[in-house]
Amino acid sequence: MSGVKAVVLSGGVGGAKLALGMTAVMDPEALCIVVNTGDDLDFMGLHVCPDVDTTLYTLGGLSNRELGWGRTDETWSFKRVMGDLGGPTWFSLGDADVALHVWRTQKLRAGESLSTVTAQAARRFGIGAAIIPMSDEPVATRVLTDEGEIAFQDYFVRLRCAPAVRGLRFDGVEQARPAAAVLEALSNAALEAILIAPSPPDLSVDPILAVPGMVEALRAPGVPIVAVTPVLAGAAVKGPTTKIMGELGVEASAVAVARHYGGLIDGFVLDVRDASRASEFDLPVHVCDTLMSTDANKARVAAEALAFARSLPRRPAVRPRP
Amino acid sequence: MSGVKAVVLSGGVGGAKLALGMTAVMDPEALCIVVNTGDDLDFMGLHVCPDVDTTLYTLGGLSNRELGWGRTDETWSFKRVMGDLGGPTWFSLGDADVALHVWRTQKLRAGESLSTVTAQAARRFGIGAAIIPMSDEPVATRVLTDEGEIAFQDYFVRLRCAPAVRGLRFDGVEQARPAAAVLEALSNAALEAILIAPSPPDLSVDPILAVPGMVEALRAPGVPIVAVTPVLAGAAVKGPTTKIMGELGVEASAVAVARHYGGLIDGFVLDVRDASRASEFDLPVHVCDTLMSTDANKARVAAEALAFARSLPRRPAVRPRP
Repeated sequence: MSGVKAVVLSGGVGGAKLALGMTAVMDPEALCIVVNTGDDLDFMGLHVCPDVDTTLYTLGGLSNRELGWGRTDETWSFKRVMGDLGGPTWFSLGDADVALHVWRTQKLRAGESLSTVTAQAARRFGIGAAIIPMSDEPVATRVLTDEGEIAFQDYFVRLRCAPAVRGLRFDGVEQARPAAAVLEALSNAALEAILIAPSPPDLSVDPILAVPGMVEALRAPGVPIVAVTPVLAGAAVKGPTTKIMGELGVEASAVAVARHYGGLIDGFVLDVRDASRASEFDLPVHVCDTLMSTDANKARVAAEALAFARSLPRRPAVRPRP
Repeated sequence: MSGVKAVVLSGGVGGAKLALGMTAVMDPEALCIVVNTGDDLDFMGLHVCPDVDTTLYTLGGLSNRELGWGRTDETWSFKRVMGDLGGPTWFSLGDADVALHVWRTQKLRAGESLSTVTAQAARRFGIGAAIIPMSDEPVATRVLTDEGEIAFQDYFVRLRCAPAVRGLRFDGVEQARPAAAVLEALSNAALEAILIAPSPPDLSVDPILAVPGMVEALRAPGVPIVAVTPVLAGAAVKGPTTKIMGELGVEASAVAVARHYGGLIDGFVLDVRDASRASEFDLPVHVCDTLMSTDANKARVAAEALAFARSLPRRPAVRPRP
């Protein structure tokens, strides 16, 4: 990472789409993707990192475009036999996917850090960009619902986001620090822009921002921070973003997302479907079609977001205290 | 196991063939197979029990008859991706097979015993016979070779039995006890026969016999103990049995196998190809075709071995000390 020019904060699918677009419009080696690990889970003793893996598979050209998650060239013998044995199958692990989890779990047990192991996997998958978990310490997103507090994947996969969300808690976050590679990327002199991907703010981006020292590290270089809207005409492309905003008493709108990131971001990429509300923002807004349904779309959104960020004035860099 | 009538001591493939034959000629619920666990290995953090699993798959009708090991309906995505990641692939794990290992490893970590977990798997695979690991404590067969002491699967799979064997050591065996279910089966009043399957004596049966208390427990009921020859006309059907016998300075013959088990067994099932040497045995011998190439063969060998054992006089039961 001798010349990191752009850092993207990302959750899973939506974030990985923007990241993939970025690799088409800039040198991937100068791109650093900081990924949420609040979704990580222990499944049958395997350390599974859904958002990190979605990013790995997407940038490695291995993502399953039919399913919208998981790997291409996937088989399902593992899940079938796990069912035969009476084991849990609510979280679908494909056979090829399991190899990554077994490999990672073994390395973590041997004392390697999640960021080191993730970097090794990225290299093995032929990925030029740096994919970095937000922290090497475990952080577990817990969803507070009317039915009690539940683990993230219980909420997201097993219960299909059905319970009404009353709040979120990031278990262990007080003890977490940004991964060293994240701080290294953010302190790179070549850095030009920080993008917040169109991932669910509450579920996927907030865990990253909640890591102590993360917000300070994002602000320190003084480069523009730009969020790409996850809400198009009052709806998310996929996932529970707007359902949760409603449940948390927030208007399901791009304006509310910008307000959510208020104080952190310097600009907002607004979808063309919401152009009529551009005047409601109290920060610079760039309007474009943000739907990333094709690779060409992804590259165009990435290029527009990046150019927009570069067009914004730098803030004074915050020098770390001596 | 309210009415165990026969106990079989077994290694992997050859033993599982005899066990399968047994289920065709007797009530499977009255059959108990005590399986070697000296071959067990930790592979990428997964607890793999090759001999137990061969027995489970064979009796569950799940064995891969083309490969001669592993499962039927198997896929290989796990191994492919493990290779992509630079992980070890010398020990071939199929995707369906991996599910059993992940499931078992998780249960063992949660504190369940190997015999409990194995019994659960057998039930899930629809197996009537009891499949019991020789011990719930770990025992690791170590192979002493000219190139030093190596782990069993390193010798057996990775090095394809190439190094000359100078001896064997069963690491941890001093701390092991026969699994409770083994002792329970052997003390069953209905017990009529104990068979030693045609598995490699040094590699697969000796670890079972080396468990402290095992030989005493086998002798205690006073029922005939019969070994089925693993050597036919100076050669094993499969595997390194006779190669190892030669390396250990023992004649590669059925006579030498009977001598190996001398003092423990009451009869020996000799292959018809070795009938001319029947007079060299100093114990009752039953001669038949022991090749178990078809299911019909397996059933016939099982029936003959069982009838032979039943025809032998019982010894006085050894009462446990009060």
